[in-house]
Amino acid sequence: MNLKKLLNINKKIILASGSPRRKLLLEQMGLEFSVIISDFDETALYNENPAQYVTELAHQKARTVAKEIDHHAIVIGADTTVYFDGEYLNKPENEKDAKEMLRKLSNNWHSVFSGICIIDTENWNLKTDYSQTKVKFRELTEGEINAYVESASPLDKAGAYGIQDDFGAVFVERIEGDFYNVVGLPLVKLYGLLKSF
Amino acid sequence: MNLKKLLNINKKIILASGSPRRKLLLEQMGLEFSVIISDFDETALYNENPAQYVTELAHQKARTVAKEIDHHAIVIGADTTVYFDGEYLNKPENEKDAKEMLRKLSNNWHSVFSGICIIDTENWNLKTDYSQTKVKFRELTEGEINAYVESASPLDKAGAYGIQDDFGAVFVERIEGDFYNVVGLPLVKLYGLLKSF
Repeated sequence: MNLKKLLNINKKIILASGSPRRKLLLEQMGLEFSVIISDFDETALYNENPAQYVTELAHQKARTVAKEIDHHAIVIGADTTVYFDGEYLNKPENEKDAKEMLRKLSNNWHSVFSGICIIDTENWNLKTDYSQTKVKFRELTEGEINAYVESASPLDKAGAYGIQDDFGAVFVERIEGDFYNVVGLPLVKLYGLLKSF
Repeated sequence: MNLKKLLNINKKIILASGSPRRKLLLEQMGLEFSVIISDFDETALYNENPAQYVTELAHQKARTVAKEIDHHAIVIGADTTVYFDGEYLNKPENEKDAKEMLRKLSNNWHSVFSGICIIDTENWNLKTDYSQTKVKFRELTEGEINAYVESASPLDKAGAYGIQDDFGAVFVERIEGDFYNVVGLPLVKLYGLLKSF
């Protein structure tokens, strides 16, 4: 018996995200799925609150892919952002940007928000949810920040860190909430949505 | 630049634990190490408080291995337990025991304690630390408990679950503390100890 059987999903599952972390997490759940990525105009507005922002982006990602496919499937969209002191820290533009983000996060609490959206293309049944996790960084040294950015790992990650990588794991002192939300996909919320279909 | 270079450790590192999860986490940190396991009489007493209990066991594991080797090395010992309502939930003895543990944890908070001990065999410099993480399970169904125990995954794990496996990841609603402590090795504390050597 595995999670897939327990969820009793007979339709194909499509992950509407190119993130290798999200792919790994869905595999960890034991689900079989395909990945379809679709570009869309990112029209969500930063001045919304973070929960609305990530949920709306997850919705847009799922909807864009759901419209393009011609068979019945469950489409999963997700979006993650790092929110610190009223500011969105998404993927850094360059090394300098990444270092600045890490200096901001050092010795402070921030929040990670992930939105998820699931669409059943057969009946266009749509559900969304989001998760917030508070994350506390210990105080980082300039040497640690430089070494981490040199390793290139933070450059494709919101907030310029991955809690699951070598440096990220020893930067985070504690979290409050779902760990997998910080990696990029809130598994317990996703399971709840899938179960409710 | 990686963590190992940053830590500037020139001695061999020995992990005094056979846990595959701890091995994976040390590898995630980018450290090179050997594994040496040594049996010892588990003389730590359950009536101590959980922090003392896991720290003492980590100490005994590290010391037993450190005494046996004949070269200079950094030996890492670790022990993890699940503590619920004044009771230690270690590895379940059988499937029935595992199911009972999961029913206790369902819809409740519990604590995971990990102790770590590092010994430098050159000068017998010894340091210990521990980490506590609070974990909240959502309400589990009997179907979920049965399916998880049938998968055999929980049988070799303290508290009868692994937060990093398929079912475990969707049982845990939220945590407060270090995630890697729940997996079995509090990485941020371990890094702090290694840095101080």
